Amino acid sequence: METAATTLATLGQQAQQASYALGLLATKQKNTILLAMADALVAQQATILAANARDLENPKIPAKFVDRLTLTADRIQAMATGLRQVAALPDPIGNVDRAWRNEAGLMIAKERVPLGVIGMIFEARPNVTVDASALCFKTGNAVILRGGKEALYSNQALVQVLQGTLSAAGIDQYAIQLIQDTSHATAEKFMQLTDYVDVLIPRGSARLIQTVLAKATVPVIETGAGNCHVYVDQAAQLPMATAIIVNGKVQRPSVCNATEKVLIHRAVAADYLPTIITALRDQGVEVRGDAATQAIVPDVILATATDWRTEYNDLIIAIKVVDSEAEAITHINRYNTQHSEAIVTDNYQAGKLFQQRVNAACVYINASTRFTDGFEFGFGAEIGISTQKLHARGPMGLNELTSYKYIIDGNGQVRP
Amino acid sequence: METAATTLATLGQQAQQASYALGLLATKQKNTILLAMADALVAQQATILAANARDLENPKIPAKFVDRLTLTADRIQAMATGLRQVAALPDPIGNVDRAWRNEAGLMIAKERVPLGVIGMIFEARPNVTVDASALCFKTGNAVILRGGKEALYSNQALVQVLQGTLSAAGIDQYAIQLIQDTSHATAEKFMQLTDYVDVLIPRGSARLIQTVLAKATVPVIETGAGNCHVYVDQAAQLPMATAIIVNGKVQRPSVCNATEKVLIHRAVAADYLPTIITALRDQGVEVRGDAATQAIVPDVILATATDWRTEYNDLIIAIKVVDSEAEAITHINRYNTQHSEAIVTDNYQAGKLFQQRVNAACVYINASTRFTDGFEFGFGAEIGISTQKLHARGPMGLNELTSYKYIIDGNGQVRP
Repeated sequence: METAATTLATLGQQAQQASYALGLLATKQKNTILLAMADALVAQQATILAANARDLENPKIPAKFVDRLTLTADRIQAMATGLRQVAALPDPIGNVDRAWRNEAGLMIAKERVPLGVIGMIFEARPNVTVDASALCFKTGNAVILRGGKEALYSNQALVQVLQGTLSAAGIDQYAIQLIQDTSHATAEKFMQLTDYVDVLIPRGSARLIQTVLAKATVPVIETGAGNCHVYVDQAAQLPMATAIIVNGKVQRPSVCNATEKVLIHRAVAADYLPTIITALRDQGVEVRGDAATQAIVPDVILATATDWRTEYNDLIIAIKVVDSEAEAITHINRYNTQHSEAIVTDNYQAGKLFQQRVNAACVYINASTRFTDGFEFGFGAEIGISTQKLHARGPMGLNELTSYKYIIDGNGQVRP
Repeated sequence: METAATTLATLGQQAQQASYALGLLATKQKNTILLAMADALVAQQATILAANARDLENPKIPAKFVDRLTLTADRIQAMATGLRQVAALPDPIGNVDRAWRNEAGLMIAKERVPLGVIGMIFEARPNVTVDASALCFKTGNAVILRGGKEALYSNQALVQVLQGTLSAAGIDQYAIQLIQDTSHATAEKFMQLTDYVDVLIPRGSARLIQTVLAKATVPVIETGAGNCHVYVDQAAQLPMATAIIVNGKVQRPSVCNATEKVLIHRAVAADYLPTIITALRDQGVEVRGDAATQAIVPDVILATATDWRTEYNDLIIAIKVVDSEAEAITHINRYNTQHSEAIVTDNYQAGKLFQQRVNAACVYINASTRFTDGFEFGFGAEIGISTQKLHARGPMGLNELTSYKYIIDGNGQVRP
């Protein structure tokens, strides 16, 4: 009987083998296959929906998972549209970042190449299966998917369609593979498959990401946790601050670039706190605040020490009054997740200081934190938002799924 | 009593605190301090040489460490020269890779920033202490150094000089710190100091690097292992091949970009093997070979299975006869360390195919593998040679010690 480790090693070998050929595919061929995958998903939607129905029959599925897990004809159309959009994007593979001749006369070119084999670990969202497969395929990477156990039948059906399209086009179907054994033990072994997996990208809850960071020996790109702040400077246009804070909190509260905390300069706190708290409450937001906030608006809930670290992902916000911009920056650098931070100010010095000193992937003057997104940035795609400093930071598009190699042309040079 | 873990946490906190100010230093100020460090090393060489003599008194020091550990007035001058060279290099911090206006009208700039806190783990080479400190300081990073225990007194003296220069210039001396406790247990805790250390760069033997990879939870940049091949194609100019192979093996056999293996196309093997083997032996190289090589030159030592994986770092080489370029590429991708690989050929197709298909940081046509080096590449510095695909690949100069952040200027934008 095969053990989990040997099965994973087989998946890994197959992925690595597939990756060699993938890295050499012409852009046109990759795009043709992505379009064929889109057509195949729509053509085979009955099979996919049947598999999805089987997942949804499981009585153990938590109620909050049902919506994200449910597929419909419209959602399959949306997946197909996503594949067609990826096909239309420029291919970063083969781009030369720069090329130069060195002192010895060698021509050195820094050329974009795939990372190789990418491991994706995610929760019960079948759309990630298609999305991640498309982005990895477009960038010449093989992908091994480990999705949430609640979505196993759906993921199997989706991967079968994608693999079928690959095979029909004469491409190694192991370019896209799904781990069938959704046990935690196998997931942990997957995180340590250093012989075959070049990078792991976890997508999902903070807990999932922390587990991967703790267990993985394969290099990880940390994504997703967002405890994002808006600092309202004493020189802020207050109506602009309200628009930015309400948008950041309310427009889509469950996502990582939502605004979770508001810091308000003491000079404007008495004037502004009643306004912003009313505006947030009008949108159904629960407002918590420090003692200084409570002194001005007595019925806010007193924030505890843990509030400052918490990513609510919900219609909750916490407000703190600060004595200075310096205090705001220190607070942010202490409690943030290095995701997205914003200042609202009309003071040039205050704005530039904030951008320089705040330690985060994206630092805004006078804009909503919700713009931290591959599509909003114009990348045309997004595989996640990196909150680490190594390799990629902020929204990750196709270019962030590449590495490079140096291609060096000589005519007999040796080192003296 | 302080435990190792609390001491490390203190070092980490101090480094992180120092890093905030370092990232904001003007280039001119950093350069002035680097020049002052150079002067201070020379001025205080008596103290440094005395500390080094104390290290060398240790009767347990293996004979092979003595040369790399020994400091002299000339070697201190060389360190000072290195510091002055780093001062003269362009500063990558604050460079904007690109900037653009997105659809919502936000101006988005991708600006180079320091990584933050860099952990360096290395062996008994005091020059690395100065070298790594200079490169990290120039790029606005705080550094925590963990050098080999045999060099502790030397490293203490060097770090004291560097810290003294920082303090005299009004800079937080904790920008450069040395771990005083050189136990393995403390080294392991250092590798897991994720709250404070942004990246670990191990420099040294394959064993050191493997230990760091296995134990670290801090992100690691894998460096240094080099099982480099030269493939002599049937269309090679054979005298050029000889010059490239002999240079690659002999010019400095102990380093990671030395040539360790030669693959020879069968069509030229009978003609060429006696020539290349004689040329290598004339330089004192021990030649091993596969059965096909032995069939042509009977007195070569038969290579075993482990030879193909071994980085000799010595005057030893192994030769294998291959039936085709495809076999050469498959062999390389199976056994190499993704460092540097070369083909010698006058055939355009063969050369380009090799560069495309070989999985390595640097792939050469008609040049010695010895060119994989930050100085030879024109970077003006080198902190190591990355053999991984994430973040940096190949020679790492100043730019590879940076991350980036997105600086975003708006005028009230919110997401619709």
